[in-house]
Amino acid sequence: MNREPPAPNPDAQSHEDALLDEELEETFPASDPIPWVHDPRTPELYLEDFTVGRRFTSATFEVTARDIKEFAARFDPQPFHLDDAAARRSMFGALAASGWHTASVTMRLLVTSPMRVPGGLIGLGGEISWPRPTYAGDVLHVESEVVEAKRTRSKPDRGIVTMRHQTKNQRAEVVQSALIKIIVPSRG
Amino acid sequence: MNREPPAPNPDAQSHEDALLDEELEETFPASDPIPWVHDPRTPELYLEDFTVGRRFTSATFEVTARDIKEFAARFDPQPFHLDDAAARRSMFGALAASGWHTASVTMRLLVTSPMRVPGGLIGLGGEISWPRPTYAGDVLHVESEVVEAKRTRSKPDRGIVTMRHQTKNQRAEVVQSALIKIIVPSRG
Repeated sequence: MNREPPAPNPDAQSHEDALLDEELEETFPASDPIPWVHDPRTPELYLEDFTVGRRFTSATFEVTARDIKEFAARFDPQPFHLDDAAARRSMFGALAASGWHTASVTMRLLVTSPMRVPGGLIGLGGEISWPRPTYAGDVLHVESEVVEAKRTRSKPDRGIVTMRHQTKNQRAEVVQSALIKIIVPSRG
Repeated sequence: MNREPPAPNPDAQSHEDALLDEELEETFPASDPIPWVHDPRTPELYLEDFTVGRRFTSATFEVTARDIKEFAARFDPQPFHLDDAAARRSMFGALAASGWHTASVTMRLLVTSPMRVPGGLIGLGGEISWPRPTYAGDVLHVESEVVEAKRTRSKPDRGIVTMRHQTKNQRAEVVQSALIKIIVPSRG
């Protein structure tokens, strides 16, 4: 298997068009379908609002071949995430995203999902699995459900909520299933 | 809490210095401490080599403030990951990396760690927790240990290995603990 990084793409963007890593507001241009911040009308949810079984659905996000290769170059430089030909020869059969890329896109979708927590989404950890890969061109969204909500004994002003997040592609196939614990402030 | 993206940094790099997202081999310049590919002398390990208790240690990687903000802008745009002042006011107390960023850096360190698997590192999922945040300037490495290795019943040419990966900072504090199942080919 080819373990060399792929040759530079002759169709690569010019310097002028390239993303500038410090100019953060350019990272998501206005045309991006995921909002940068919550719609101000989205209500903030407290521990008491996280009733078991309550569901939330995120916006959608298309994962492009360029996204897959760019993430892989930084964080998971393996041939089946970097190079189309190597991916075809691999067990994936086509260019596939790193599982950590799918996890990161899932987080991006959750940050401005209707599951809006005062102070932000702060995860403690959980379980994660990738039943199938994310392929180039897949359009992902996240369906979330409250599994458990418990007030913290030592700090009663907050609690731990366990959410199940299923990240699905445009064919409603699950590309990631995660059970994640987050910290949520309480009303009273 | 400030939910607007931070203003552009006036000290931001020039266009010429900015990373070009398609010129992948420039993403990790020659001075980068993590190798892009395995040293060819690193032996490939098969299922039979994953004896319970065997340990591996990765190279190190410094997570800079710029890295943290850049990852956050793409995948976890919350004020405590994007903006120093907002981070100081948050429960983190200082600019902290997204947990998914810590997970992604962990993967980057594992890809060329001595745990070299023929065909690459392909994860099925597992458990993950972040006992403390990664802060700007932290230098991370990963200590890995074989927890279990089982031949696949239906496909005896491979098996599932469960690894515990502890990602530690320069003070040997655990910033991520993960128990991850990977697919490993067998010799016989």
